[in-house]
Amino acid sequence: MTLSIRNQLSGTVTGITPGEAMATVRIRLYGGQDLTAAVTREAVDDLGLAAGSAVRALVKSTEVALSTGPVEGLSIRNRLPGTVTGVTAGEAMASVKVGVDGGEVTAAITRDAVADLGLETGSPVVALIKSTEVSLATA
Amino acid sequence: MTLSIRNQLSGTVTGITPGEAMATVRIRLYGGQDLTAAVTREAVDDLGLAAGSAVRALVKSTEVALSTGPVEGLSIRNRLPGTVTGVTAGEAMASVKVGVDGGEVTAAITRDAVADLGLETGSPVVALIKSTEVSLATA
Amino acid sequence: MTLSIRNQLSGTVTGITPGEAMATVRIRLYGGQDLTAAVTREAVDDLGLAAGSAVRALVKSTEVALSTGPVEGLSIRNRLPGTVTGVTAGEAMASVKVGVDGGEVTAAITRDAVADLGLETGSPVVALIKSTEVSLATA
Repeated sequence: MTLSIRNQLSGTVTGITPGEAMATVRIRLYGGQDLTAAVTREAVDDLGLAAGSAVRALVKSTEVALSTGPVEGLSIRNRLPGTVTGVTAGEAMASVKVGVDGGEVTAAITRDAVADLGLETGSPVVALIKSTEVSLATA
Repeated sequence: MTLSIRNQLSGTVTGITPGEAMATVRIRLYGGQDLTAAVTREAVDDLGLAAGSAVRALVKSTEVALSTGPVEGLSIRNRLPGTVTGVTAGEAMASVKVGVDGGEVTAAITRDAVADLGLETGSPVVALIKSTEVSLATA
Repeated sequence: MTLSIRNQLSGTVTGITPGEAMATVRIRLYGGQDLTAAVTREAVDDLGLAAGSAVRALVKSTEVALSTGPVEGLSIRNRLPGTVTGVTAGEAMASVKVGVDGGEVTAAITRDAVADLGLETGSPVVALIKSTEVSLATA
């Protein structure tokens, strides 16, 4: 299976908090960062996830935001610091590649955002990903 | 590879509109419905997608909205009519299963939404999925 | 139309930037805030959107993030300042209601985020919504 999902970060489950409908899964990426995924409780059961499970965190490019400033007091759990390695701009949207510890992240953001933030190769940024946007794959 | 992504609908690519950064891919599901996915241009190239390609459309449950009324004048491209087959409610969130032609769709929506719409097993609904939330997998 | 989508904000289209696959639509909400929606080019054509069109911006609760700190240098286009009016917490997830100019916004975020940000009724926050998460309805 080959996925259109650009962002695939490997790591190990470090903890799970199950709710009735949803569950939060904490992952330590091989790059050293911590990531939280909010998935259905059913998915956790189906995948047999537990502390120690090897997983890949999957995130669609359209779900990745970028910040050039400090990120404090933000509900967004996942923050991967990195450096812009490339920008491809269309009329409305742009695709921005960010090198992070242990891999690369692609963000599809508006062209306006690229201009406002002055993003270009070499710009230091933090990739922000809401927990509800992180999917998980095993093996 | 096993995915936490609950919604996986198989079909065939019927057309692609490439932009610079993004591309829209139209798919005819085996259930007969048409689906549009907005993915990065790069993903289309990497997956070698073309009219006729067999794909699976992947949609995270948190990206599925439900409607109990008619849906007109809506930018959301993907609309799968079906019937609720089960509701699991937590304090804040709920997981709703919907039987659609050719498969089943899970929607993770707020508990408030379930109450407001009066959703229960047997309720007729339309599952709504924004194109930017659809990922694609080949083979 | 009865939708599970909690957040529906009315306004008027002020501008459209069409790309090949996607388009960005700018909206002035009746509450006075500006909003950007990134939707498919096809949706703009189908809905016949143009400057002056009356629309409702639809945003699923799971797509709304909250900030208690300053939001500068952020790619997320849509920022609605407001005040928390209620918090419903489950084990994994929480639903937070925020009063904003001209309406109310619901954010489904992790329970951890609520605790870390110390959110409670009366907390001043900014609701953050990525443009790709905004859908549009006419009429």
